[in-house]
Amino acid sequence: MIGIFDSGVGGMTVAKAVEERLPGHRLVYFGDLARTPYGSKSAETIISYSRQNTEFLLAQGAKIIIIACNTAASVASDILQQEFPVPIFEVISPAVRRALAASRSGRIGVIGTRATIKSGVYEKKITEQNPGYQVFSQACPLLVPLVEEGWLDRRETKMILRRYLHPLKLRQVDTFVLGCTHYPLLKELIQPRIGRRVALIDSSEEVAESLARFLDSHPDIDGALSRDGENSYFVSDITDAAAEIARKVFGRPIVLQKAVSER
Amino acid sequence: MIGIFDSGVGGMTVAKAVEERLPGHRLVYFGDLARTPYGSKSAETIISYSRQNTEFLLAQGAKIIIIACNTAASVASDILQQEFPVPIFEVISPAVRRALAASRSGRIGVIGTRATIKSGVYEKKITEQNPGYQVFSQACPLLVPLVEEGWLDRRETKMILRRYLHPLKLRQVDTFVLGCTHYPLLKELIQPRIGRRVALIDSSEEVAESLARFLDSHPDIDGALSRDGENSYFVSDITDAAAEIARKVFGRPIVLQKAVSER
Repeated sequence: MIGIFDSGVGGMTVAKAVEERLPGHRLVYFGDLARTPYGSKSAETIISYSRQNTEFLLAQGAKIIIIACNTAASVASDILQQEFPVPIFEVISPAVRRALAASRSGRIGVIGTRATIKSGVYEKKITEQNPGYQVFSQACPLLVPLVEEGWLDRRETKMILRRYLHPLKLRQVDTFVLGCTHYPLLKELIQPRIGRRVALIDSSEEVAESLARFLDSHPDIDGALSRDGENSYFVSDITDAAAEIARKVFGRPIVLQKAVSER
Repeated sequence: MIGIFDSGVGGMTVAKAVEERLPGHRLVYFGDLARTPYGSKSAETIISYSRQNTEFLLAQGAKIIIIACNTAASVASDILQQEFPVPIFEVISPAVRRALAASRSGRIGVIGTRATIKSGVYEKKITEQNPGYQVFSQACPLLVPLVEEGWLDRRETKMILRRYLHPLKLRQVDTFVLGCTHYPLLKELIQPRIGRRVALIDSSEEVAESLARFLDSHPDIDGALSRDGENSYFVSDITDAAAEIARKVFGRPIVLQKAVSER
């Protein structure tokens, strides 16, 4: 199976993208709703939770892991890749590759949670590949609560977005990374506020594309992945809001099963 | 010692009020920052965390527990009071007593997290005491993130408050309960938006007063409480934002020690 974990429900945008790009493959999802959000927690805590989530998915039979949370990916992906003997994908590298390909001016904007931006991971990965590029980043800690409230078209959300995005717009970026899996749900509000001609990079789509290419070139691994049975959606806490976001993301009701990853 | 727990840093307003009302008593605080916030989680998860937090404080030597979190109090206080053999105070009952005493019109407003409002605890306790009273309540899930961001005087915060409070203002309440320990930090924005003559009830102050009266009438318990040594502030995750809020609440730097309560 393909295992996907996230701090909560945001990573369902990744599960949806994988489902569409690789139909027939079986997925197991884990959303850590009992400890969500990760974005304002310390690196040490996020690493410990990410390790537990990975172990949970492996115990469920996952042979490939996708870290569908930019925050977890930004501080824990190197460590998980060292510690676990399976291919581990994450949402950051594919988004970085796409941003490098999309930008002509070399001026790239990035938004994310406080922990993601503090890690400097996008800046590091982009300038490693092309030292001439400039990265302008902004932590947007209120966007996750606004999305989870379903305030996707409210005047307050637009004002808060304007406050976050205006400094990046002034930098005249031509490419803009949505560095959190919740943000694609705000795409239509973000585009006019960052500039109509700016390329938005959605990490959910990029990681699905990157996994599909990997499986194309590794038929042995692809062949070993299960195509039988239903996809499973585990969460460490079941709430009405989570069920509602799941329904919104997938366009159909999703059965959430309760499981905890903490040891 | 007097043990105080909260889902994060909001309960420090309670610790501060107890410190001022009972100077010389030794406090041990636990803030569950690694799993914060509780307000949007399920009752089952909140009960399990509250039990673990209580056990942690008892292991530190606490002889009295204060549940300094409206969300935890609203769903877990009855259970904790049955399960643990020490006096357990919580922020709701004292605020309810004060609201009943303050209201002349019998029209009382309550704001809180989603879990607190969903529990219906304020409505239940108020109408149990006085069936003629009417309670109008509103979940305000974005206020905790706004306070934790330090957006205490921003235009966006004022707009969001207006949206939450306007329906309650129309109900012409004369008494208004701040049913979350984060909200006293927004008192000055709330007062003009709910009405200048409306009595605001701050649960932090009320629980400190209630504990002081209990100790006055139970000198045996009061005598057994420690007055030696420094107060301890434990949190399950250490972040810059938490240290900053602690400094703001106490008006001095607070040394945060890391400890987890999960088993």
